Amino acid sequence: MSAGIIYGVGLGPGAQDLMSVRADRLVRGARHVAFFRKAGRKGQARAIVEGMLHAEAVEFPMEYPVTTEIPFSDPRYNEILSGFYADCTAHLQRLAKAGADIVVLCEGDPFFYGSFMHLYTRLKDVVPVEVVPAITGMSGAWTATGQPITWGDDVLTVLMATLPENVLAEKIAATDALVVMKIGRNLPKLKCALQTAGRLEDAWIVEYAQMPRQRVQRLTEAKDVTPYFSIVLIHGQGRRP
Amino acid sequence: MSAGIIYGVGLGPGAQDLMSVRADRLVRGARHVAFFRKAGRKGQARAIVEGMLHAEAVEFPMEYPVTTEIPFSDPRYNEILSGFYADCTAHLQRLAKAGADIVVLCEGDPFFYGSFMHLYTRLKDVVPVEVVPAITGMSGAWTATGQPITWGDDVLTVLMATLPENVLAEKIAATDALVVMKIGRNLPKLKCALQTAGRLEDAWIVEYAQMPRQRVQRLTEAKDVTPYFSIVLIHGQGRRP
Repeated sequence: MSAGIIYGVGLGPGAQDLMSVRADRLVRGARHVAFFRKAGRKGQARAIVEGMLHAEAVEFPMEYPVTTEIPFSDPRYNEILSGFYADCTAHLQRLAKAGADIVVLCEGDPFFYGSFMHLYTRLKDVVPVEVVPAITGMSGAWTATGQPITWGDDVLTVLMATLPENVLAEKIAATDALVVMKIGRNLPKLKCALQTAGRLEDAWIVEYAQMPRQRVQRLTEAKDVTPYFSIVLIHGQGRRP
Repeated sequence: MSAGIIYGVGLGPGAQDLMSVRADRLVRGARHVAFFRKAGRKGQARAIVEGMLHAEAVEFPMEYPVTTEIPFSDPRYNEILSGFYADCTAHLQRLAKAGADIVVLCEGDPFFYGSFMHLYTRLKDVVPVEVVPAITGMSGAWTATGQPITWGDDVLTVLMATLPENVLAEKIAATDALVVMKIGRNLPKLKCALQTAGRLEDAWIVEYAQMPRQRVQRLTEAKDVTPYFSIVLIHGQGRRP
């Protein structure tokens, strides 16, 4: 029996009809579906495909043993997550070696700051793995603002709000267009960095881009409480005939 | 009679089944289809949808009066392009005001260094315009390399190879992950900048990402002749449990 294929399928920013035709076909046809989620939650990736799965699809939720309870800098963080990814990998590998195709649901684009990459690097030399790219969350966010993100020769910098404030300020001052992800509790720090860089007035925040709860605001008008998956951005002002 | 809607529809990197379900539906259903192309060419956006258009679809090719014949810095460049965009806008506006819906075909994501933005800013306050985000060419390219582009807190910088060499070198030295677009005749300059930044050995070049002619190479092994739409990239090496 030949091995099954593990598909890392990008679902895009959240609206079902923003999934690619290829992703749509794979998700609806899948008999084995795996996805990450925080323990006790439904899971954002699983929520996106609600109503699309085959009646006989077997679901394999992969529940993070830790999310923000331990800081990244704690040596236990890497150790715990590494064991978790190894367990997930072992299960998917067993299924694939028994001949099953498996669709791993991935929010956004799998190779762009995604969790699937941790499975991918462990699986790619052992079983067949295919990755389906997708619309990134940031594309969903800048489209939601109704303004293009980059023009002409604009430089675009993508930053994680988990970076230190001084690094954020320095990078923000040096770019034309900006996207910042992993916001959540880092928002007050990010606001300080934007202020230091002289760019706070230009910043927008998008919550739940391309989802029913979508909200687009100027950052100066937004509260300090926002989801981890919110996106802050500054539009480039480059050449435009 | 109510005005029609002008849809700026992102087609993604090139494979038809990487278009979103929404884009696929709009393209197949359209009775008016507009797209940019270089004079005398079929046009890349039009080529992507080959075989998908309705039998009665009316096509409106918008042919650039100039592409790389005049440098951006020449004052005539802006003047000529500005007149061209005004003409295209006037035609689309007439159609929409007469009640027709129009699909404008856009390679990649419309708001990410796209030509549609020049129509969008001229049309958005006059007739209803809707933008459909898409998989960017760069997502198609990094997926083609079989390696994730960004991990953990990696900084991603997106640059146009049309920038001066010293600016390229400085930005390349300061980032973790890198994407460079608008390559073509700028490739030798970009290679020098990568060398100056000490990153040449890490760079990959992707030609025709997600299309039948797709080619992925280490940049040090590639020739100096490459299409304008090739993408050069360096993968981030950030935190990975």
